[in-house]
Amino acid sequence: MSILTRPILEINLNHVLDNYNLLKNLAPQAAAAAVVKDDAYGLGAAAVSRKLYLEGGCRAFFVAHAVEGARLRPEIPEAAIYVLQGIGEDNRGLFVEHNLIPVISAPEMLAYWEKEPIAGIMPVIHIETGLNRLGFREKELAALSSRQRAQFAMVMSHLACADASEHFMNHHQLDNFLRLKKQYFPNLPGSLSASDGVFLGKDFQQDMVRLGAAMYGINTAPYRENQMKNVVRVTAPVLQTADLPIGEFVGYSATYRANSPRRIAIVSIGYGDGIPRSLSNVGKVFFYFVGLHEARIIGRISMDNIICDVTDIPEVKVGDSAVLIDDFYTLDDIARDAGTISYEIVSNLGKNPRFLRRVSG
Amino acid sequence: MSILTRPILEINLNHVLDNYNLLKNLAPQAAAAAVVKDDAYGLGAAAVSRKLYLEGGCRAFFVAHAVEGARLRPEIPEAAIYVLQGIGEDNRGLFVEHNLIPVISAPEMLAYWEKEPIAGIMPVIHIETGLNRLGFREKELAALSSRQRAQFAMVMSHLACADASEHFMNHHQLDNFLRLKKQYFPNLPGSLSASDGVFLGKDFQQDMVRLGAAMYGINTAPYRENQMKNVVRVTAPVLQTADLPIGEFVGYSATYRANSPRRIAIVSIGYGDGIPRSLSNVGKVFFYFVGLHEARIIGRISMDNIICDVTDIPEVKVGDSAVLIDDFYTLDDIARDAGTISYEIVSNLGKNPRFLRRVSG
Repeated sequence: MSILTRPILEINLNHVLDNYNLLKNLAPQAAAAAVVKDDAYGLGAAAVSRKLYLEGGCRAFFVAHAVEGARLRPEIPEAAIYVLQGIGEDNRGLFVEHNLIPVISAPEMLAYWEKEPIAGIMPVIHIETGLNRLGFREKELAALSSRQRAQFAMVMSHLACADASEHFMNHHQLDNFLRLKKQYFPNLPGSLSASDGVFLGKDFQQDMVRLGAAMYGINTAPYRENQMKNVVRVTAPVLQTADLPIGEFVGYSATYRANSPRRIAIVSIGYGDGIPRSLSNVGKVFFYFVGLHEARIIGRISMDNIICDVTDIPEVKVGDSAVLIDDFYTLDDIARDAGTISYEIVSNLGKNPRFLRRVSG
Repeated sequence: MSILTRPILEINLNHVLDNYNLLKNLAPQAAAAAVVKDDAYGLGAAAVSRKLYLEGGCRAFFVAHAVEGARLRPEIPEAAIYVLQGIGEDNRGLFVEHNLIPVISAPEMLAYWEKEPIAGIMPVIHIETGLNRLGFREKELAALSSRQRAQFAMVMSHLACADASEHFMNHHQLDNFLRLKKQYFPNLPGSLSASDGVFLGKDFQQDMVRLGAAMYGINTAPYRENQMKNVVRVTAPVLQTADLPIGEFVGYSATYRANSPRRIAIVSIGYGDGIPRSLSNVGKVFFYFVGLHEARIIGRISMDNIICDVTDIPEVKVGDSAVLIDDFYTLDDIARDAGTISYEIVSNLGKNPRFLRRVSG
């Protein structure tokens, strides 16, 4: 018996690379950029980027904030680093110092850029095609002079519903993109699609695809079976097992009551580690003993612990590993059970330094 | 007009200290320990602990994991640091090196400790009284020899329903605590209550209270008005404003459609920063212009951006600060709107290095 206390986050970089290559092969005519914003969705942007740079030949990376790009620069010295949230007074120095490329999404930001451009850097223009989030609207594009339009290196937009292949919005946005690009930036390379758009075919792939979620194993084409390899494994040790007499309550606010005698295990991971509290009384963990055994989460998930019902798995003892996420119960599965999306799960997961992180590949 | 890109997390340490002192005064006969696990619920354990140590006279701190205690030690050299998840093979060295005190919650962990005790450190024993989470069960206590019982410095337990003052579980747990303590550890100091238990009165306060959530401004006595000062303020800049024509959709999966012409603002913060995605189409942000103005979140929250309806606030322009959390819309308020608890909100909030952190006090 081992006595262990820490949750473990395992990240398989070889699978990230395999997924990157698979997606790249689906869009052979496009440049394959990697989206490593939010610390590579919580999985560690430094290691992911280095891997893709050295072994995947990736030379274009997208982050959300300049501060993320600054941290990445030493890992990928020759790559282009695009900053989606753009440039402002609170981050301009980072663009200069680390050679970052701003994505400019609004006239006000463009005016700021034109007042203080950075020599040697050509920004990307973000145009709005239907998501109604960031990007120049058509009338704002029409107001740009040809000199203003000439300062950009690329034109990008972003799809709203690309995870639903039949959604009317996809072709609506593609049509808008092609029309606006032709009218205002006929000679620029274009980028429209993230991972989900890659699966919509060549028209959507344009000149550069921005590979994120699918690279991390998330199924961005849920209308068919996931082709991606799982990247994430989360386990945590059992700190204690106990018999639960009939009638006893479990956890905060006593939301679970035993209708029959149960055996429980207390697992050293909680919402403080990014396991969503919405899995209280709903989610499950797994144990390996010859086969795979499922143990239901009972009571409320607390900040540092989860309680699960191991009545039917008498082998479970202190120190055993409970599996929270793995190949057979992926980010997509836990997200579905938690009532959210994989992206939110993974971006909260990776952030707690209490995790033992094991990066392979 | 300023062009800004980064979300800002402001933490008021003076209010943490005021809350600590208020709680301490409610339990004058008890030692007032500070719970700073999970990086002080995401707010920064180093700064919080140093403040309480230097200005609050606090000399006892609780963390969940030894790795958290190790990081704190330089800030609070003379304090006792208790580790709630206990000691095991994966963290023993940290206890030795940083003089940490394990909380031992199961016979198996005790056996490990007895095999490899650390000279000069007396552990705490955690006993189970009704939460059915960690802690020695009664029959396990009965199996301890008097020599075994003599090695502990304190006995602790934890309440399940202390945020509901009339819940039957409170006195059930207090009775269990007093009975077991009298029988097995009559001469040891006892600790039963966290913040919420402090409000239940002197019986529940015992010899040491463990002040956490309330110190960070959370109302742990929701059956009455919050006496705590707010500690957290979260703002993010408007990156763009736009007119939204009637019939247009907003955000991923096109979950919002404009029934009339609207004006929208795109705010540079998202679930990647810890704003729960469950606030999509439900939550709100605020703007100050003379008075306070509320703007509804529309469409799905994305990783880096929130879209809100500012039709009725024509003053809103690029660079303005949208307020996500403040004195008038606290952690408790946003948690209620998101369908979770303040603890989960705050522990996810503080972890993204993209935040500009401003610590005052």
